[in-house]
Amino acid sequence: MSVTAASQFTAAGISAGIKATGKPDLALVVNTGPHRVAAGVFTSNRFQAAPVVWSIDALADGRLDAVVLNSGGANACTGPDGLVDARTMAELTASAVHTSPDKVAVCSTGLIGVRLPMDAVAAGISTAAHALSPQGGPDAARAIMTTDTVSKQAVVTSEAGWTVGGMAKGAGMLAPALATMLVVVTTDAVIDATDADAALRKATGLTFDRTDSDGCMSTNDTVILMANGASGHAPDIDEFTQALTGVCGSLARQLITDAEGAKHDIEILVTHADSEADALDVARAVARSNLFKCAIFGDDPNWGRVLAAAGTSSATFDPDQVSVSFNGVTVFAQGALGEDRSLVPLVGRDVLVEIDLGAGDASATLWTNDLTYDYVKENAEYSS
Amino acid sequence: MSVTAASQFTAAGISAGIKATGKPDLALVVNTGPHRVAAGVFTSNRFQAAPVVWSIDALADGRLDAVVLNSGGANACTGPDGLVDARTMAELTASAVHTSPDKVAVCSTGLIGVRLPMDAVAAGISTAAHALSPQGGPDAARAIMTTDTVSKQAVVTSEAGWTVGGMAKGAGMLAPALATMLVVVTTDAVIDATDADAALRKATGLTFDRTDSDGCMSTNDTVILMANGASGHAPDIDEFTQALTGVCGSLARQLITDAEGAKHDIEILVTHADSEADALDVARAVARSNLFKCAIFGDDPNWGRVLAAAGTSSATFDPDQVSVSFNGVTVFAQGALGEDRSLVPLVGRDVLVEIDLGAGDASATLWTNDLTYDYVKENAEYSS
Repeated sequence: MSVTAASQFTAAGISAGIKATGKPDLALVVNTGPHRVAAGVFTSNRFQAAPVVWSIDALADGRLDAVVLNSGGANACTGPDGLVDARTMAELTASAVHTSPDKVAVCSTGLIGVRLPMDAVAAGISTAAHALSPQGGPDAARAIMTTDTVSKQAVVTSEAGWTVGGMAKGAGMLAPALATMLVVVTTDAVIDATDADAALRKATGLTFDRTDSDGCMSTNDTVILMANGASGHAPDIDEFTQALTGVCGSLARQLITDAEGAKHDIEILVTHADSEADALDVARAVARSNLFKCAIFGDDPNWGRVLAAAGTSSATFDPDQVSVSFNGVTVFAQGALGEDRSLVPLVGRDVLVEIDLGAGDASATLWTNDLTYDYVKENAEYSS
Repeated sequence: MSVTAASQFTAAGISAGIKATGKPDLALVVNTGPHRVAAGVFTSNRFQAAPVVWSIDALADGRLDAVVLNSGGANACTGPDGLVDARTMAELTASAVHTSPDKVAVCSTGLIGVRLPMDAVAAGISTAAHALSPQGGPDAARAIMTTDTVSKQAVVTSEAGWTVGGMAKGAGMLAPALATMLVVVTTDAVIDATDADAALRKATGLTFDRTDSDGCMSTNDTVILMANGASGHAPDIDEFTQALTGVCGSLARQLITDAEGAKHDIEILVTHADSEADALDVARAVARSNLFKCAIFGDDPNWGRVLAAAGTSSATFDPDQVSVSFNGVTVFAQGALGEDRSLVPLVGRDVLVEIDLGAGDASATLWTNDLTYDYVKENAEYSS
């Protein structure tokens, strides 16, 4: 599975000693051809980490041969020295896999504002290059984990014989917000750079962009797609986009389920909005309400906090036409009290909050999670 | 002190039985004249609670004789029935203090989406009216507390002999966000309705509007100013605004210090911004970063999270010109690593985070607090 599910991709994940724990912390994903098509989407944070600056340049021509990824350090906000380190990672990888540095993307995740231990990184790239294999996907997925408790992988194979597979780490949302998300997706479908870019933007827009764990945007978020055409099949662009969206959607759900400290997966469905943008605006306001997220942690269908958050949005709606339901029980109906909140079956991990704006025909779903003691604990202690 | 510090105001705070605990939950503040000037500012949430809808109408002519306040229930999102309840509170109060309902403002705080026990409220208003006294300010301040651990009061007396005094409950921010804040401020200065309104908007803009505890906007936020001219002194408008800002600023700081679960008071000072709006934009982005707020709870000067949050703003700045200091130690200097974070003296309750944008001459300060286990606990268990 993972990034080596598609033909003619190799990967490796090893312990380079970047993490003090000795856990795996360096990964390579290599496209062995025949095509070298690639596309990427990146954080919209204005403090772009050095590897993001590098990778945007590397992807400008829609071609990549390899991606080098490390956990244990974000190489973000590290100034000119950090840019040199990112470039050095690309150069060392290019040398090890026999390509040029501008065909290598770089991804880093971990603490912001700390230089990478470049001796360990250099030795690790060499070790990883020797470990590259068509079965290396799972190892690569493990080597990019930080606070993740499980590695994230997904695969979709078409009946025609082409495959899309990917790996992810982190929890959050691509634009505008997250706690560093790195994703590499590979495919052996035949696709050109323009279509690859369009498909990736559409797939991420419907998946990672609608995943908001804690509203915090990372400096390092990166999603890279590499396509080598090794299957010989050239799918219809819509069919390919659907498969890619399937892989990205699966990875996005895995991110939310493993989000730091999360005890509930929350689906916020906004219906009867005047536009899809309005629906997302309302959903995002609710997903970012700490009061709402704490209530869900406490198994409390506190719909007042849903309305208070929705009321901060600028979406078109009349408060007297709005209804809210929790797990199918309508607790607020067209501007007035609905069924008693004690009737809401709030047990188990999954929570569905539906907000009917009564304003139009558009809808959208956003995924988030609750705010828990463990989230606070992990993020109070993370760098110490 | 409090709302009865100025001459010719009476107040009371009693237990009406709205709260199951039997703690004080109903307050009256009455202006006994000679003037009846008043102004108010309210939540910008689109789901305005019934008492907010009522009070905006009552204040439209710039005149008030009394404010009735209750804790134990927000009377928000309660539909047409809730509007009737708010009107009934005004009518009962008007009858008890011998004025007309349209001269009575209503404020409620507590759980959203639950009707008030109107029998208890009615009896409570009668009891409170009999308890009105020029020494009743502290009792009134206690009766509006919900999760507050202490009551909040502030007084400024001019050398000329006029006084501004106020009370507050809650924690958060007036526009656009908070966890229900109710504030009543009284003065015996001579001031007309136009000046009272202008002074209140300026004072709240510099104080409550720059206080952001958890980024969540309430449906009930209300700040009311009543002026009776009883001192016979007509201060210069700037002098009055300064005194009013002093009282509001003191109350705002008390709100932050007593915010739910807070262990640190955080001052975010943004300097060298292109505009004051830009400075506030950056400060607000940082104040709303859960990752940053958890780090401060953990006594961790995690400046990377400050930059990651600042990078989500649309303020004018060049990332390479930005510097960040924690408690005076510059940990990020003009786009590159600064002094080691271990040098930051992060002990005690007060934390100063200074962000120098290197883009202009404007600056602004925002007050917030950390995100703690106790915040999650209080808000996971609040309504159960």
